[in-house]
Amino acid sequence: MSTAEKTFSKGLEGVIAAQTEMSFINGTEGILEYVGIAIGDLASKSSFEETVFLLWNKRLPSRSELESFTQSLRANYGLCDEMITQIKSLPTDAEPMHVIRTMISMLSLYDTNPNENSVEAAREKALNILAVTPMIVAAFDRHRRGLEVVAPDASLGFAANFLYMLNGEKPTDAMIRAFDICMITHADHGLNNSTFAARVVISTLSDVYSAITAAVGSLRGPLHGGANEGVMKMLNLIPSVDDAEDHVMNMIKNKERIMGFGHRVYKSKDPRASELMTLAKQLADDTGNMDLYLKSNAIENIMEREYASKGIYPNVDFYSATTYHCIGLKLDLFTPMFVLARIAGWSGHVIEQLGDNRLFRPTTDYVGPHAAPYVSIDDR
Amino acid sequence: MSTAEKTFSKGLEGVIAAQTEMSFINGTEGILEYVGIAIGDLASKSSFEETVFLLWNKRLPSRSELESFTQSLRANYGLCDEMITQIKSLPTDAEPMHVIRTMISMLSLYDTNPNENSVEAAREKALNILAVTPMIVAAFDRHRRGLEVVAPDASLGFAANFLYMLNGEKPTDAMIRAFDICMITHADHGLNNSTFAARVVISTLSDVYSAITAAVGSLRGPLHGGANEGVMKMLNLIPSVDDAEDHVMNMIKNKERIMGFGHRVYKSKDPRASELMTLAKQLADDTGNMDLYLKSNAIENIMEREYASKGIYPNVDFYSATTYHCIGLKLDLFTPMFVLARIAGWSGHVIEQLGDNRLFRPTTDYVGPHAAPYVSIDDR
Repeated sequence: MSTAEKTFSKGLEGVIAAQTEMSFINGTEGILEYVGIAIGDLASKSSFEETVFLLWNKRLPSRSELESFTQSLRANYGLCDEMITQIKSLPTDAEPMHVIRTMISMLSLYDTNPNENSVEAAREKALNILAVTPMIVAAFDRHRRGLEVVAPDASLGFAANFLYMLNGEKPTDAMIRAFDICMITHADHGLNNSTFAARVVISTLSDVYSAITAAVGSLRGPLHGGANEGVMKMLNLIPSVDDAEDHVMNMIKNKERIMGFGHRVYKSKDPRASELMTLAKQLADDTGNMDLYLKSNAIENIMEREYASKGIYPNVDFYSATTYHCIGLKLDLFTPMFVLARIAGWSGHVIEQLGDNRLFRPTTDYVGPHAAPYVSIDDR
Repeated sequence: MSTAEKTFSKGLEGVIAAQTEMSFINGTEGILEYVGIAIGDLASKSSFEETVFLLWNKRLPSRSELESFTQSLRANYGLCDEMITQIKSLPTDAEPMHVIRTMISMLSLYDTNPNENSVEAAREKALNILAVTPMIVAAFDRHRRGLEVVAPDASLGFAANFLYMLNGEKPTDAMIRAFDICMITHADHGLNNSTFAARVVISTLSDVYSAITAAVGSLRGPLHGGANEGVMKMLNLIPSVDDAEDHVMNMIKNKERIMGFGHRVYKSKDPRASELMTLAKQLADDTGNMDLYLKSNAIENIMEREYASKGIYPNVDFYSATTYHCIGLKLDLFTPMFVLARIAGWSGHVIEQLGDNRLFRPTTDYVGPHAAPYVSIDDR
């Protein structure tokens, strides 16, 4: 076949790369379901712990199963002393995403059987990574702020425990619920790039640490999880709600990208964004950040007026920025929050891949020369 | 489209996922070319440094270009003191592949601009990672053996410097040349899993460290780079050349996998294996390991008799095992040698991807339920 005859879908757009029973996305209609359950129902009625159980087991837990799962998670909140020492030795100006990728990778060095790859072992390792990553994030953030590391509190749920370790004080119920909903809505999303990276890596029968480490590295990219930082940066450039119209129209005129709008998958409103919008408004009101919410809302209205006919709507990053700001997170901890949630999805996909594995090994369209001579260096 | 109508190629076999000008593989005819030049020519006439230049620049260097490239590489052989301290703090029983993945990830913490992503910046970061990874491997190996870390010697080439840092003494010319040829033959190989993982990760415009870290994690899997350890383990189970026939026929009878044979891509002899076979024989003779070579050769003959008609031939892992053993490497350093070489290919593909990027974002065949109700926990 000649090069001219070869066609391929750049970025594998539209190419099916795996089967899954976890999340279903209908971009045209703006539907996201986890194991068939609408994301809106889960956000309003479920907890992150229950959602993780759902994704990993393909069904909702009974009360005793949920209790048992939650207890296992809580029993694993703490990092070993060696890991805490390592975190305290890291340069304080490092970007948290680089630290998280490195420290999740390092967890393997303190696991006596890091390479166990049965579905059951992968499930245990995933649970452990999910349980300790909040402490990696919180411990590094406190280290760089010159504060003592706060030990986890196993009486608290996933969301509350993280916010407690980060701030050293118990969060309000509103913050816990808001954060928990962020975790639920970010837990899984089909074969997004980082999830795909995790499946690609585990398909060599490598190990769970390698797969999750790869996914963290993918997520930090500005075309993926890094986008929620971009939204906040843009919001910070707009002094007040009254400046939003001029600022955004100017960006459009200069063909600058408006962060937090459009998604390759969704051609209608991102169903995760609707849930977050309601939440962001309430939190903004609770925490004295209504100006930020109003700016966001103004931008959404301008974009809807200008672009809704082209299928460009706010995506999940747009309102998660406002939410995380209201919870008190620094800008460079926005993408790490995405990590905490998405470990659920990455792990679930790793478990699915291990259950029915086939090595990912695509092919290339080679467009270079053939049968070239090795010309001696004196003759070049 | 109903699920039944959806078809997909599991593992993306046969699916074109990227264009490349680096390596061309014709599995049926057993051809491997880098930028059009036959691997056999490069193995016999080129050096690893020149091969890296070829892969990254798509042409052979002039003498002054090669000198300049080699000098840049040598100037970057040394790890910073902080990294050396980190390596010395690692548990000595850790698997080197987990250590390498973690330490390459950690390099980003000591780079003042780890996220720079222009093609030019990526090239510099790749050169730095390629230059320092031998010291990561050697320093950790010496740390676990209770030996002092050996500083690099910038008067030595890539192969010689690594062997010097590992053993604390200058290697013989035969070892240097053998090792260099291993590096050349393992430098690139189309969209193998780890290279694909690197391209997937960099496509979020993440960073070179994230991409290479992902690739290391992929390579350690037994279905990929980890396979060369399996060959040595199998060879160790066969007491002498006279036991090869019984041992192998027994494995075949019990349907055990004969390590180092067959490759998804090559349906004829792996062109890299031929080169290595010649090399392995000479080195075995030089180092008093002819029994090992003879065992390998006997297994190859048995397999050829039994399976050549089915297109199962020795792959690159088969003779690299003998080679690495003769060079004096411990078993768990076999896959790390693959890392040292393949950083060249991974980096070249990262550079290609950045030059014409499109986010990898395939889709899934969702096979779970739809529109499922959220049943209250009391009703489950």
